[in-house]
Amino acid sequence: MPEPLVGNLLVAQSGGPTAVINASVAGVVQEAGRHGCIEEIYGGTNGILGILNEELIDLGDEKRAAIEGLKHTPAAALGTCRYKINFVKKPEQAKRDMDRLFEVFAAHQIRYFFYAGGNDSQDTAHKIHLEAQTRGWEMRVIGVPKTIDNDLPHTDHCPGYGSAVKYNAATVMEIALDVGAMATDDGACCLIEVMGRSAGWIAAGTVLAKRHADDAPHIILLPEIPLDEEKLLAKIREITAAHKYCVVVVGEGLKDQAGHEIGADKTRLDAFGHPVLSGAADALAEIIHGKLNLKTRTVKLGYAQRCAAHFASATDAAEAAACGEAAVRAAVHGESGMMVKLVRTGTSPYRWTTGLQSLGDIANAEHFIPRDWISADGFLPNEKFIEYARPLIEGEVQVPMEGGLPRYIVLVKSPVEKKLARRTKTGETEHVARPVAVPA
Amino acid sequence: MPEPLVGNLLVAQSGGPTAVINASVAGVVQEAGRHGCIEEIYGGTNGILGILNEELIDLGDEKRAAIEGLKHTPAAALGTCRYKINFVKKPEQAKRDMDRLFEVFAAHQIRYFFYAGGNDSQDTAHKIHLEAQTRGWEMRVIGVPKTIDNDLPHTDHCPGYGSAVKYNAATVMEIALDVGAMATDDGACCLIEVMGRSAGWIAAGTVLAKRHADDAPHIILLPEIPLDEEKLLAKIREITAAHKYCVVVVGEGLKDQAGHEIGADKTRLDAFGHPVLSGAADALAEIIHGKLNLKTRTVKLGYAQRCAAHFASATDAAEAAACGEAAVRAAVHGESGMMVKLVRTGTSPYRWTTGLQSLGDIANAEHFIPRDWISADGFLPNEKFIEYARPLIEGEVQVPMEGGLPRYIVLVKSPVEKKLARRTKTGETEHVARPVAVPA
Repeated sequence: MPEPLVGNLLVAQSGGPTAVINASVAGVVQEAGRHGCIEEIYGGTNGILGILNEELIDLGDEKRAAIEGLKHTPAAALGTCRYKINFVKKPEQAKRDMDRLFEVFAAHQIRYFFYAGGNDSQDTAHKIHLEAQTRGWEMRVIGVPKTIDNDLPHTDHCPGYGSAVKYNAATVMEIALDVGAMATDDGACCLIEVMGRSAGWIAAGTVLAKRHADDAPHIILLPEIPLDEEKLLAKIREITAAHKYCVVVVGEGLKDQAGHEIGADKTRLDAFGHPVLSGAADALAEIIHGKLNLKTRTVKLGYAQRCAAHFASATDAAEAAACGEAAVRAAVHGESGMMVKLVRTGTSPYRWTTGLQSLGDIANAEHFIPRDWISADGFLPNEKFIEYARPLIEGEVQVPMEGGLPRYIVLVKSPVEKKLARRTKTGETEHVARPVAVPA
Repeated sequence: MPEPLVGNLLVAQSGGPTAVINASVAGVVQEAGRHGCIEEIYGGTNGILGILNEELIDLGDEKRAAIEGLKHTPAAALGTCRYKINFVKKPEQAKRDMDRLFEVFAAHQIRYFFYAGGNDSQDTAHKIHLEAQTRGWEMRVIGVPKTIDNDLPHTDHCPGYGSAVKYNAATVMEIALDVGAMATDDGACCLIEVMGRSAGWIAAGTVLAKRHADDAPHIILLPEIPLDEEKLLAKIREITAAHKYCVVVVGEGLKDQAGHEIGADKTRLDAFGHPVLSGAADALAEIIHGKLNLKTRTVKLGYAQRCAAHFASATDAAEAAACGEAAVRAAVHGESGMMVKLVRTGTSPYRWTTGLQSLGDIANAEHFIPRDWISADGFLPNEKFIEYARPLIEGEVQVPMEGGLPRYIVLVKSPVEKKLARRTKTGETEHVARPVAVPA
C-alpha cells in the first residue's frame, strides 16, 4: 500500500452515451466519498473538451439523492464529446492540448482522473497517463469502460451493452407479435435496424428474444458477415412460407461482398449534392420489396436504443456502478494507466467481478464476435453467443415515475471557479471573441 | 330489459395492433363469463378474414390466466387484418362476403358479435349490424374502439393512444438527454418520426415529455399543419443557438404547402422503378443538414411505438379492458349497432366512464386536433392539448418478466370445428386447391 496521494478527483464522460454510463459516475463519486485522501470531487463537462475549457463542476455540491439517481438516468449527465487528441494527424494541436490539460490538472490539484468511454476515450486516458509520467505530475489515471457496441477487448463485456440488448430484444419481441398478428397469406417482412458500425454485438443480442425456434428474430444480419443477397432472399422466402412473416434485425454497418456499407448509397445524391444515406434497413427493404413483392416495413431505433433507461438491465447498471467504484479503489491503491474490466467468474449462476487491464492493451483494438458463435449460414448467433449474452440483460432498473413518465436526474452543475486564462477553440490564444458558454 | 338472447359470442380484432387491444378482448371474454345467456365464447382469427374462412377458435378453452395475461400482451392475440367489405367498389364480392359471414354466424349460432378496431373496422361492424337486421338474424353487434391514431370521433380518446404516447414521450425524453449530452457548440439535431398519417395526435402527445419550457421536444410537426420550410429552418437555428441541440418530432404524414407528403418522394425511383419512400424524417434531415450544415440524425420508431407493452399506460390498459366489458354488457342489455366510447367525466382528478355511440356516426368520420389546441406558430400543442392528453399516460402496466424480457401470452387457439364447406380467397367456389392453413 503506497503513501496516500492527497488531492482532488476529476471524472469525465466521453463518446456516445448509454443507459448506464451515469451509473459509473455515481460509482466513482460514491466510492470517492469513502476515501479521505480524495478532497474535492469534480466533473469535467463534455469530456476532454470541457476540461480543456476549464469547465469543471463541483460534484460535491450535488445532493446525495441526485448522485444515487444517476444510476437510473440515461445519457451522459456531465456531457460528453468525441474530441480526440491526435499526435499523428495534428501534432501541434495535440501538444497544445496536453499542455493545457496539465495546466488545468495543476490549477485544480487533480490527482485522480477517471475517464468513462469506449475505444477512443481509453486511448485518450492512456495518453494522459503517459504524459503525466513524462511530466512528473503525480496523478492516477483509470479508464472506466463504456459502450453499447461491446467492442472493447479484454473485458468480458462492456457496461451499456446489456441495457441496449435488453431494450432491443424486447422491442424485437413486441414488433414480432405485431407483424405476426397482421400477417396473412400475402406475407409480411419487418427490418429492424440497430446500431453497430463494425461489430455486430448489438444486432446479435436480439437473438435473446427467441424463446422458441420459430420466434423472431428469424434472421440477424451482422456487419461481420458480408451480405449474400441471393441467400438472404431465399431465406426470407422460406421463412415467410413457413410463418407468413419474417423479422430481420440489421446491424447498421452491414456490408456487401465488396466490403461497402449497404446503407451508404453513394450513387444517389440529395438536393444538396450529398450522398443519400438511406440506412441499411431501408436499402434492404427496397431490394426485398422489389424482388419478392413482399410488404416490407422498417424500424430504425437509432439513439433510442442507447438511452432507453426506462427498460435498462439491472445487471448492467450494477456492473457500470461497480466499474466506477473499482476505478477509484484501484487509483487509491496506487494503480494508474489501467482500465477496469469486467471478469466473468461463473456461468450458472452468472457471477462476475472487476479486474484491471493496462490501457495500452485496450487502445486501438476492436473485439468482434467469434465466428464460431455464429451459425454456419451466418444468419443467427448460436448457443455459445446466447450463453454469453443471456445474463447481461437480467433484472430491471426501477425508475421513479412522475405523471406517467420517468423522473430522470438533472445535475445542478455548480461551476468550479476558473483559475486560468481562457482558451480559444484551437488553444492558440488566451482570449476569445465569443465566450464559450458554461452549460447550465 | 329485453328477453335474454341466448347463443354464442364471437369477438375479433381488426386493423393495426396496439399495446392494449388484447386487453379489450380480455374484457369481452371476462364479462361474457358473467352472463348465462352467452354460451360459447369464440374468437375470429385475423378479423373478418378468418371469419370468412370459418377459422374460429374456442376462447373458452384458454386458461383463465392466459385471458388475464392478454391485459399486458401487445399486438392482436387473435390475429388481425385490413380486409374491407366494399359494396361500392366490389359489390359482388361484398355480397358474397356478407352471405358467407351470415352462413358462419348461423352455423355457429353467433348472437353476439364484437369487433375491436379503428375507423374501417367500425364501418365493417356497422355494415354487419345493418345486414343482420335486413336478414332477420338476431345478433347484437357492438364495436370496441381501438387505434393509436386517436382519430375516431365521438369518443374522448381511443384505447391504444395513451400507451403509444407514453412510450413515445419517454423515448423523446431519453433521446433528448442523449443528444443534449453530445451537443457541443457545433450543435446537433435529432428528428424522431412517429406514426399518424392524417391526424397528428401521436406526434402531439410527445409534448408530454416537456417538463420545462426548454425541454424537448422543441418542435412537433403535425400532419394538420402544412410545413413551412423556411420557418422551420429559422426555428431550428434559433433553438440550436439557445440550447446547442434541437429535438424535432415528425408526424409521418407531414405535408408540404401543396398537400404532398414530405416522406413520399416520387421524383426518386429505386432500382425496381418504385418511388423511394424516404420517410418524412429522413427527407427533412437531408434538408436540415444541407441548408443548416447541422449534424442531424433520425429515429423511426415504426411498429415499435404501437406494441411497446413493456411501457404501456395502466390507464389505457384499464380503459381498453373496460371498453370490452361495456360492449358485452350493452349487448346483453339489448343494444346493437353501437360503438363503446370513452367519456371524460372529470378533469382534476381525471375521471372517465364508458358510453355508447351509434356506429353510423363513427364510420367515415375522422377526428383531428382542434386548431386552438396548437400554438399560433403551429410548432407545438398548447396547454389545452396537454390537459387533454396528460391523464392518458398515467400508471404503468406491470408485465411479468422472464430472463430479463417480458413474458407475453400466446393463446392455445383451439380451433372450433368447421361446419361449412371451404371458401376460396375470393369466395367464388366451395372448394380450394391450396387449403388455407389454420394458424397454429
